[in-house]
Amino acid sequence: MSKAPWVAVHVSSAEPGRRVGASDIVDALAQQIRGGHVPHGARLPPVRVLERRLGISKNTVQAAYDELVARGLVVSREREGVFVAVPQGDPVPQRRALHAAPVTWAAPLVVSEPLRGLFDLGNVFIDPQLLPRERLAECHRAVLRDGGPMPFYDAQGYPPLRAAIAERLRGRGIEAEADDIVVTVGSQHALDLVARAMAGRVVATEDPGYRYVVPLLRSFGHRVVGLPLDPFGGIDLEGWARILEHERPALVYATTSFHNPTGYSYTSHEIAALVELSARLGCALMEDDWGSDMLSGSEYRPSLRATGGRGVLYLNSFTKKLLPSLRLGFVLADAAAIPALVGAKRASVLGGNLVSEMALCEFLERGYYDTHLATLQVELDARYQACLDVLRASMPALVRWTTPGGGPTLWLDLPRSVDLAALRGRMVNRGIAIEAGASNFLGEPTLHGFRIGYARHPIDALARALEALAAEVGAML
Amino acid sequence: MSKAPWVAVHVSSAEPGRRVGASDIVDALAQQIRGGHVPHGARLPPVRVLERRLGISKNTVQAAYDELVARGLVVSREREGVFVAVPQGDPVPQRRALHAAPVTWAAPLVVSEPLRGLFDLGNVFIDPQLLPRERLAECHRAVLRDGGPMPFYDAQGYPPLRAAIAERLRGRGIEAEADDIVVTVGSQHALDLVARAMAGRVVATEDPGYRYVVPLLRSFGHRVVGLPLDPFGGIDLEGWARILEHERPALVYATTSFHNPTGYSYTSHEIAALVELSARLGCALMEDDWGSDMLSGSEYRPSLRATGGRGVLYLNSFTKKLLPSLRLGFVLADAAAIPALVGAKRASVLGGNLVSEMALCEFLERGYYDTHLATLQVELDARYQACLDVLRASMPALVRWTTPGGGPTLWLDLPRSVDLAALRGRMVNRGIAIEAGASNFLGEPTLHGFRIGYARHPIDALARALEALAAEVGAML
Repeated sequence: MSKAPWVAVHVSSAEPGRRVGASDIVDALAQQIRGGHVPHGARLPPVRVLERRLGISKNTVQAAYDELVARGLVVSREREGVFVAVPQGDPVPQRRALHAAPVTWAAPLVVSEPLRGLFDLGNVFIDPQLLPRERLAECHRAVLRDGGPMPFYDAQGYPPLRAAIAERLRGRGIEAEADDIVVTVGSQHALDLVARAMAGRVVATEDPGYRYVVPLLRSFGHRVVGLPLDPFGGIDLEGWARILEHERPALVYATTSFHNPTGYSYTSHEIAALVELSARLGCALMEDDWGSDMLSGSEYRPSLRATGGRGVLYLNSFTKKLLPSLRLGFVLADAAAIPALVGAKRASVLGGNLVSEMALCEFLERGYYDTHLATLQVELDARYQACLDVLRASMPALVRWTTPGGGPTLWLDLPRSVDLAALRGRMVNRGIAIEAGASNFLGEPTLHGFRIGYARHPIDALARALEALAAEVGAML
Repeated sequence: MSKAPWVAVHVSSAEPGRRVGASDIVDALAQQIRGGHVPHGARLPPVRVLERRLGISKNTVQAAYDELVARGLVVSREREGVFVAVPQGDPVPQRRALHAAPVTWAAPLVVSEPLRGLFDLGNVFIDPQLLPRERLAECHRAVLRDGGPMPFYDAQGYPPLRAAIAERLRGRGIEAEADDIVVTVGSQHALDLVARAMAGRVVATEDPGYRYVVPLLRSFGHRVVGLPLDPFGGIDLEGWARILEHERPALVYATTSFHNPTGYSYTSHEIAALVELSARLGCALMEDDWGSDMLSGSEYRPSLRATGGRGVLYLNSFTKKLLPSLRLGFVLADAAAIPALVGAKRASVLGGNLVSEMALCEFLERGYYDTHLATLQVELDARYQACLDVLRASMPALVRWTTPGGGPTLWLDLPRSVDLAALRGRMVNRGIAIEAGASNFLGEPTLHGFRIGYARHPIDALARALEALAAEVGAML
């Protein structure tokens, strides 16, 4: 027979810091019963529970319960427990159902639409078949089972991982020390820390841009200013200068290699010009380098951080390249920024998943990451090339696309006469999802298209989907 | 010989969406060179890089470079690359060093002091020797190596893990479905999501209380109101009602089992009274249940969620009980709250570490968690009892402490005549760190003491530290 739940009660010693005696228990329970705090018919805590809780002997608790029985306040029932007595004629009170007030929520910051089994042509992730799951498993096992003592906690991130990341960055011409790095839950979390820790409240970023940064910035009360980016024509540096002069944002957030969603990569000239603008106008820079590890021949990519020095914040993530669910990224700052960033990290998550951080460190130190990137880049290059081939062969004239040079995604742009919502509906009828590219823009879209993800799917399936898209676009022109 | 880095340039087709021809490359580079965007002496991208990037043949790129050589704009050097020509007498320009403006940071949200090798008497974590690292390793291996296909992504959390958590909660009398749960990066992150997603901007919580919630709430612009908690006397419900009536917070955040830092557990009466206040005043409730899994005999602990229904938010975490670095917690809400909470989670980290979520799910499903808790509770009970024994044997009169009934920590309270800062200094000289308990209070401390953590250290080391503390306290009275 399952016993009834018992009520939680409060018992303390009359003499502070001394052992609770039987009389303390009797007095406390008698008072709580008479005061109606413990309802008639309620079960009291078992003897063993009070014994352990108060650190006293079983006999003391039993003596107290015996005294309460003697006073007629409680009754003891064999194999059922000790219960508050119910006065004769007094029905066991039924506590009326209580309902706490619910929370009032703001509108959801991010609304995502389920795909319901469609072929996802806008997906920016890499085919799981290309990801090194087996080697990640080995590295997890190595650190959990065969590793030395598990380090306790490091809110900034596992120190050897930070050292390994810094060494990789130096190999790409970026000044970095382990102490300058804060490990994060993917690069979204790096953005979260910066948004939380910075003093200013205006952030400028490319328009179109990475869609999830806007609700994140807004959740901390930042205003977001758009810097129009035309991936076909390059950056209008004079236009950007006018906007930055006028808005004076505290921070410019830019994805210089493989801009999301357009696939655009900044030229060396544009990078230098942006650093000059930062120095002249006092707008700090934050560079998101999510893409360059996926691009072959990217070992010499210029970067804001390499060009503009230690004041530039640099974000990157291992998530897309290794396993979407791994959620490991980092922000590279400089020593002056670390207390603010680590303080923000403690406020948001206390600390990171050290098991994953250690496993990633093992993965980097064994050299698995470089060999993985090399084979991954070959495969991504092949899929990119296949995507270009299908587009060239099948897309009607006036349709254009960016040439990011590999990686996972390009921007396909259509003549304005094509109704994108209608095109989406037609594609859904074919079982294929295309993104609503307009969501990448802060205001009125300056482009008329959407992302094509070519890293997610095998070439033959991708080709069929692109040919279907070309057929629908052709029918709408 | 290591080759020079090359400059990044922008080349696109004159006819949108068509293959880039040699003349496109010549025109683009000639314009960028003449415009000074590519400095004299700079190395141009290797042929293979443009070939891959633009998806064209090597011959096309080579023909373009040959034409630029013929025009005198570039020079080709064997085994070195292709360089922008330097006009005679014109020195290779050195770009002047650029320094981007640095970010201006707000004051750190959380400042933590390093312990520098001291024995940490305030530590609330559990001895790593008591944690099931080997079994966690097995579960990680099972899901990474032997598991089926890795699920792609679930921003709400791995669905089977949410189902396993809901089942456990139902076993404790808490209404819960998998769809009502959002998995988080530990319970701090659950607080982050609620703080980000809620509409109201005033939160009330116990004073003293969990210290890291205050900077978190403030980072989203919330005002924090204190509800005085005396762990020796219980909750002053009339006092709380007056504060709540006056402040009308949107949310009351309460740790009802094993309150941090006092170890206090709410009585059934206090829980019911708080739910009644919530219903009457419209203040929603959020319950943090971090502690009850560590308490033996806690299977019937009353909770706000079980008493107050589905509108109550309920937080918990596996971190402390399994591995501090695992960082897995959850918030239980109800269907109406899920879009706001998942939207907030996407804004903060996009999604969680699915590898860890799957490993935890495996751990729960194999039944490891219950057997682990059972053995853990026995050990924590023994350490708790040993701690009580040493305190009773060694502490001077007038020193008092709470009796949480197990778990990791109790509150030790000293006579006001003891200068806590001076005591900390004396303890540091003995190699022992005690916490600055005042940091747990929102304003003027209503208690005069600090946490004692008894779960972190073996009994003999703990006893020596407590005896040293008793000796110093005795010397100061």
